[in-house]
Amino acid sequence: MGQSIIARVLDTKEAVLAGAAEKPGHPAMGRSIAPSLVICANTLALAHSADVLVDFTTPDALEENLTAACDASCAIVIGTTGLTPKHHKLIDEAAKTIAVLQTANTSLGVTMLAALVKEAASRLGDDWDIEIAEMHHRHKVDAPSGTALMLGEAAAAGRGVKLANVAAKGRTGADAARKVGEIGFAALRGGSVAGDHVVILAADGERLELGHRAESREIFARGAVRAALWLAGKPAGRYTMNEVLGLS
Amino acid sequence: MGQSIIARVLDTKEAVLAGAAEKPGHPAMGRSIAPSLVICANTLALAHSADVLVDFTTPDALEENLTAACDASCAIVIGTTGLTPKHHKLIDEAAKTIAVLQTANTSLGVTMLAALVKEAASRLGDDWDIEIAEMHHRHKVDAPSGTALMLGEAAAAGRGVKLANVAAKGRTGADAARKVGEIGFAALRGGSVAGDHVVILAADGERLELGHRAESREIFARGAVRAALWLAGKPAGRYTMNEVLGLS
Amino acid sequence: MGQSIIARVLDTKEAVLAGAAEKPGHPAMGRSIAPSLVICANTLALAHSADVLVDFTTPDALEENLTAACDASCAIVIGTTGLTPKHHKLIDEAAKTIAVLQTANTSLGVTMLAALVKEAASRLGDDWDIEIAEMHHRHKVDAPSGTALMLGEAAAAGRGVKLANVAAKGRTGADAARKVGEIGFAALRGGSVAGDHVVILAADGERLELGHRAESREIFARGAVRAALWLAGKPAGRYTMNEVLGLS
Amino acid sequence: MGQSIIARVLDTKEAVLAGAAEKPGHPAMGRSIAPSLVICANTLALAHSADVLVDFTTPDALEENLTAACDASCAIVIGTTGLTPKHHKLIDEAAKTIAVLQTANTSLGVTMLAALVKEAASRLGDDWDIEIAEMHHRHKVDAPSGTALMLGEAAAAGRGVKLANVAAKGRTGADAARKVGEIGFAALRGGSVAGDHVVILAADGERLELGHRAESREIFARGAVRAALWLAGKPAGRYTMNEVLGLS
Repeated sequence: MGQSIIARVLDTKEAVLAGAAEKPGHPAMGRSIAPSLVICANTLALAHSADVLVDFTTPDALEENLTAACDASCAIVIGTTGLTPKHHKLIDEAAKTIAVLQTANTSLGVTMLAALVKEAASRLGDDWDIEIAEMHHRHKVDAPSGTALMLGEAAAAGRGVKLANVAAKGRTGADAARKVGEIGFAALRGGSVAGDHVVILAADGERLELGHRAESREIFARGAVRAALWLAGKPAGRYTMNEVLGLS
Repeated sequence: MGQSIIARVLDTKEAVLAGAAEKPGHPAMGRSIAPSLVICANTLALAHSADVLVDFTTPDALEENLTAACDASCAIVIGTTGLTPKHHKLIDEAAKTIAVLQTANTSLGVTMLAALVKEAASRLGDDWDIEIAEMHHRHKVDAPSGTALMLGEAAAAGRGVKLANVAAKGRTGADAARKVGEIGFAALRGGSVAGDHVVILAADGERLELGHRAESREIFARGAVRAALWLAGKPAGRYTMNEVLGLS
Repeated sequence: MGQSIIARVLDTKEAVLAGAAEKPGHPAMGRSIAPSLVICANTLALAHSADVLVDFTTPDALEENLTAACDASCAIVIGTTGLTPKHHKLIDEAAKTIAVLQTANTSLGVTMLAALVKEAASRLGDDWDIEIAEMHHRHKVDAPSGTALMLGEAAAAGRGVKLANVAAKGRTGADAARKVGEIGFAALRGGSVAGDHVVILAADGERLELGHRAESREIFARGAVRAALWLAGKPAGRYTMNEVLGLS
Repeated sequence: MGQSIIARVLDTKEAVLAGAAEKPGHPAMGRSIAPSLVICANTLALAHSADVLVDFTTPDALEENLTAACDASCAIVIGTTGLTPKHHKLIDEAAKTIAVLQTANTSLGVTMLAALVKEAASRLGDDWDIEIAEMHHRHKVDAPSGTALMLGEAAAAGRGVKLANVAAKGRTGADAARKVGEIGFAALRGGSVAGDHVVILAADGERLELGHRAESREIFARGAVRAALWLAGKPAGRYTMNEVLGLS
């Protein structure tokens, strides 16, 4: 992701690359990424020279980077996944002094899709059954995908229910009848698919199919850079990708 | 459609069938449709005995039915197509004294899809190209379908442009490059397909695909009856399917 | 199915309806189905007056109907499901004296799809991962569908493996990585979907998607009647839908 | 394509890169592509050191490369497009002394799909309507795509008709009814889609959808290298991608 984001920043007219940091000892340390810019280990210095940090690291690294961002009064976009409640608390704390945008998915298309799914689920009656299918490359380990679950959360929120109470994952068997109100998940794996998702709302005689196809992981870099441009100069607070798209 | 709507009303707990009217001389005249109900030619009497009329007729017949609805102070759902500005003026006039819901498509799913398409088109930037594909049965004469054009109108409205200025229908040829801002339409025909539509918003590296599949024309009767139940008792005014779904 | 097949025979120029039988005591007994034809309980008499029987009953009823077909030297199309090895033995026995076509799915489209899937799986290398997704109405109890399993058998046969050894149904969990050679199944349920199936063969950088959509169960009657017309006059032997399509 | 093919050869265990040639004066001339290998302009020397040439150039350059291949008794895979009857004649001539595989599309998936489409079109009756839809990136100039036309040729061959007599491209208008036997083409353009194709065969009540999705143009390099490996050592003659897949 780091390389994708660097490439995307360099390719974006409105953006200027301030630098890039890796953890100490990383083999890329010192590598040139642009005229007079090398990969460094000093996030604090980077935060001082930048308007916005973009963090795609690990939960542990995020903690340090958040501190650097706060110390330097630099906004931060967080795309790191695997966060626990502890991290969310640290983010809330940081958001009191700087602008923080945290998201599980920086793709604009997926963000838009989740908003549309929530809207559809909230408007259409309970007689519209909701199912979510996704396909990813053959090496993906978890099923359903994090994005499928995020779309399920959006559908459940639209319905006013908790996803944990209605999720049905990996339906199989001789006695696998659908329960009323269930949100079903199906996972396909194969080839090198970057990530396809479709949310189906099915009633008697008709279906809505709301889907997203990613051609490559590069879209996450695009979305992250767009989020960073949007976040620059915003007052302290915690933001989401929805606000980048002007969604409430 | 008449038979489908009668069947749907009889099948809906909250609804009571007040009767059915056909034009004088129609072969179905006098046929029994429910205990002590036969098909009649007197729309005015029907309007007096009903809370809501549902009109799937012809533009000419609609004129008479509107008069009957006004005279009887009966609400009316209008699914008749082929209306001209003259008819819309008559509808506006009627809407001063009774509740009128007029729509080119009574399907709840298509109504929902149009609203989602408008939202997506308005939120995503101009770097998301919009294309609309549809498939219908082999006997359909016009292309693109009326519903595809309705979805195109929704996309154009979201973009803040006029569809007539950006529509590209039936792209073909050696020099058929896409123009910036174009909304493309593609029509497939074959078999007995009741009606499939998909609106694609495509950016670099990702795509949204927002689609609807109709299994049969029965969904139009379902939507019309739901619209009638919603319209019953509403104050005078002109309404749309959007309001049935709580969409502004 | 009985009514669908009667309607389809009456609607097919090349076919003549010889009659219809139900089990003794069935409420439809004696009902008129065509001029001078009523539903009867005497399958033997029916077999004597017909060129082909079409059997969509139960495994138990099939036993009697097979005997009647043999006694009357009448060909038989068998679409009844839930057969055990015992029934297949009886069918093999009957096929020594009459023409018998037995199939788990009389749809021409599904038959064709299975043949294409087998061909693709046999030609493309093992680096093409195979996955099968299907969607059916909300009331279907079993998952995956019988047709999905039939398509899986076709893929496995193409690969030269046994489906039981490679089937992965209802993939879900944090540790659900795809195994090499796996054929995955995913089941979606909702609305009134008659039956959609897609077999995906995914390699690095590309995918084949081979799918079938059924609009209604009526296609099974169409296929059964076409099979009956094809079977009429054939020598004793056991046939399949493949042969109706000229597939080896 | 040149770079993709070099990368693919280097990434393929069974293959050894013999070198690469560009036209004289090309800016890449002399660039290192592997230890002790640089891009050269001498195709004849290259042909002498190689088992198979892979030609993705221009029709003009192809003429010279064919001569070099013949002079060096080196097999050749030709993926160059825009060939005229003159070039096909030269290829036929060359095929008398060397093994030549010429194709409009080196993708294994597309080759497989075309074979399946031909088979389905030949087995299913004329009551199955055939339609072809494709989507490509926003910069593609021609519509329908060359691959869509290739699939149309396969369908027409299966039907035993000439595509030119039945092709219907860019259906649009108030009087655009489908003619019996027509093969319809629809072209969608947008975003960065590498190339999606679907052939639909639609009958009353059911549809087959036979599709292919390309994630990137890299698949053409993969197929070309696989074709080269297959072609190495083959006797003189003209071959196609079908034979690489073992299709007759």
